[in-house]
Amino acid sequence: MFITFEGIEGSGKTTQIRFAAEFLSATNRPVVLTREPGATDVGRRIRAILLDPAHRNIDPRAELLLYMADRADHLGRVVRPAVGSGKTVLCDRYFDATLAYQGYARGLGTDLLTRLHKLVLDDFTPDLTLLLDLPPEIGLGRAWRQIDAGERTAAETRFESEALRFHERVRAGYLDLARRFPGRFRIVDAAGTPDAVRETIQKVLSDFLESYPPRP
Amino acid sequence: MFITFEGIEGSGKTTQIRFAAEFLSATNRPVVLTREPGATDVGRRIRAILLDPAHRNIDPRAELLLYMADRADHLGRVVRPAVGSGKTVLCDRYFDATLAYQGYARGLGTDLLTRLHKLVLDDFTPDLTLLLDLPPEIGLGRAWRQIDAGERTAAETRFESEALRFHERVRAGYLDLARRFPGRFRIVDAAGTPDAVRETIQKVLSDFLESYPPRP
Repeated sequence: MFITFEGIEGSGKTTQIRFAAEFLSATNRPVVLTREPGATDVGRRIRAILLDPAHRNIDPRAELLLYMADRADHLGRVVRPAVGSGKTVLCDRYFDATLAYQGYARGLGTDLLTRLHKLVLDDFTPDLTLLLDLPPEIGLGRAWRQIDAGERTAAETRFESEALRFHERVRAGYLDLARRFPGRFRIVDAAGTPDAVRETIQKVLSDFLESYPPRP
Repeated sequence: MFITFEGIEGSGKTTQIRFAAEFLSATNRPVVLTREPGATDVGRRIRAILLDPAHRNIDPRAELLLYMADRADHLGRVVRPAVGSGKTVLCDRYFDATLAYQGYARGLGTDLLTRLHKLVLDDFTPDLTLLLDLPPEIGLGRAWRQIDAGERTAAETRFESEALRFHERVRAGYLDLARRFPGRFRIVDAAGTPDAVRETIQKVLSDFLESYPPRP
């Protein structure tokens, strides 16, 4: 099973995906916790390029292709083998992030991205996607407090440095995706306390697992 | 005008493209000498990933997408602006290298690559491509002597470390491309001395420039 966590900067994905991994592990499911970009040796080098604030002039298509290169390495060497051997893979960001950031917010459009994903990555799609939704002014405030407190590295702030309007487009993109693919998406209100969000996510996961695999 | 130089490791591209730049500059053409991968700040970081011999297990599609990411940044920020302002761009490797190495030698096929190139890079194609052709045992011998002599860095030997059979597939791929696109390709025998190859290339460039733009 392949479950992805999505959301803007500061939505709490990284904290909540760890809680979710603990929750699923406690039900005796073998869980693999991973993320994009940067889950493989090659991916970590790509992540460093993508998140380096010095690269603000990167060509938008180059940015897109770097995310796809990371994804190809990640799928080929981590996700597919783990899913194939019966593990539950929890992934912090996946193709929906590319659609939201590069497709909607950068304006490359979702059509080009969807065709590329089909062509190169065989349209590999999550079984379930949790969208941690909250207003960007709250998310960015949290993200910068973590950076100031040294909990996140300043070497990875290229996206936090984008204008608020950019993050509003990302959020709107995610919400549009959730409307277009209601079978796969669950929207989680991420503005509450970590414990409240954790409980909501546990409920979503329990409901999903009860009904999985879906009846024909 | 956009002119590319192609060939296997040790074919003398890097030396010969410099000679060609001097030759064209002497005819008062504004020349830009560039290369793939690694012509931009982002590209140099991508080049370091691609040529690092530690990454021998990289997923083949990730490798392909990294080359395309470098190309997108290079086209968007260097090649298109230079060609657009009337300069003659000489480029050490371009899309034909992707076709030969990833398409033919790695077995991804030229169809996938050609569709990707059209989709992401608008099928941007050179006006002229010089293929410096020679047997791989000669080319690899030259390349390793340069590495041993410290003229090339050992941090960029991932491709030299491939088996001879791999390089034979690359060469066969290049020759097949030259047969498929005879209007654009010129095959240059690169087994001779640098001076002999230099003279051949000057003749090819002179003939091409005399007939350019081609009559309808």
